[in-house]
Amino acid sequence: MQLSELLTKQINFIVETDKLKQILRRTSPISLSRRENSAEHSWQVVLCAIVFEQYANQTVDLLKVIKMLALHDIVEIDAGDTFHYDKSGTEGLYNTELMAAKRIFGLLPPGQSKEYLALWQEFEAKITPEAQYASAIDRIIAIVINSHSQGGNWHRDNVTVEKALEKNAHIKDGSEVLWQMAQELLQQSMRKGFIKP
Amino acid sequence: MQLSELLTKQINFIVETDKLKQILRRTSPISLSRRENSAEHSWQVVLCAIVFEQYANQTVDLLKVIKMLALHDIVEIDAGDTFHYDKSGTEGLYNTELMAAKRIFGLLPPGQSKEYLALWQEFEAKITPEAQYASAIDRIIAIVINSHSQGGNWHRDNVTVEKALEKNAHIKDGSEVLWQMAQELLQQSMRKGFIKP
Repeated sequence: MQLSELLTKQINFIVETDKLKQILRRTSPISLSRRENSAEHSWQVVLCAIVFEQYANQTVDLLKVIKMLALHDIVEIDAGDTFHYDKSGTEGLYNTELMAAKRIFGLLPPGQSKEYLALWQEFEAKITPEAQYASAIDRIIAIVINSHSQGGNWHRDNVTVEKALEKNAHIKDGSEVLWQMAQELLQQSMRKGFIKP
Repeated sequence: MQLSELLTKQINFIVETDKLKQILRRTSPISLSRRENSAEHSWQVVLCAIVFEQYANQTVDLLKVIKMLALHDIVEIDAGDTFHYDKSGTEGLYNTELMAAKRIFGLLPPGQSKEYLALWQEFEAKITPEAQYASAIDRIIAIVINSHSQGGNWHRDNVTVEKALEKNAHIKDGSEVLWQMAQELLQQSMRKGFIKP
């Protein structure tokens, strides 16, 4: 038996995206000193999207949200992880990531390639309820992790409450409840000395 | 503002399940020498379930499949990872994992706790189309990874083609196509000397 062309392309995509396990983020898992990778993070945001579904501002297509989150960081295989607090300084980033998305999703058969590229673009545009909720989840998790790791990378990376509030304010577009939770966790962390005002 | 009791429980669950990043599996990521953890693996099986959906023997509720896969290894936080090829020797394993499932999903509000426990039990029972497809995905990924890593842990752990075929035959209950693919990848790997007959 020969593997079909379709299946061969899909396997190639899975093999290529295995590299996401090599992409390191700024955050560390709770109680570990090593940095976490984007594959672990991608699992955790999928889990959070499931657990927090009831807090999305609008009813969302959860399957679509999960597809976005499972795919959202794959561009980092070519483009690297960009620290959220640096993003304003990286104007060419979207184009770099778009090229990455085209190359990597382009390994798949045309139908899937188009679908996943569109999902990634929708996620990046943060306009639809699914993209806004997915994006809120992608941001809230770092606050949950750091507030349970004595501040985690907030100290290392000089993140203050003021900066965190400014940079994460779009959480409220996806979920008012999670935005209130983010603010409360940041206030608690400040009282404990995990983050500077 | 105080976090609601509901939200506090959900955060506690996310914080507790962060430990999945510490659970090491036998397999290594492609081209890395370190072992992979169950959180990375959980992302990868979610991705595979999305990519290979068309090959499920029966039409499946993909969201349910993904929930199962995102949750399926969480019991390992208490029970540890059990090597697939050792499973026959571990009769008490199901009970140990069930206790783990009850403790960890029990951190959540009652509705979610029940739902996730039921999903985990359905996955383990391998009777419904969703559980059979999810289980096929959970098995096929190790074959894809090892066949692209010069055999990966097959050599280290004395896995032969014969044993692999026997231990993974239930892939066909979830997907005939993926089962054919598994056999073809094992044959290719044998020809290349990545696995013994």
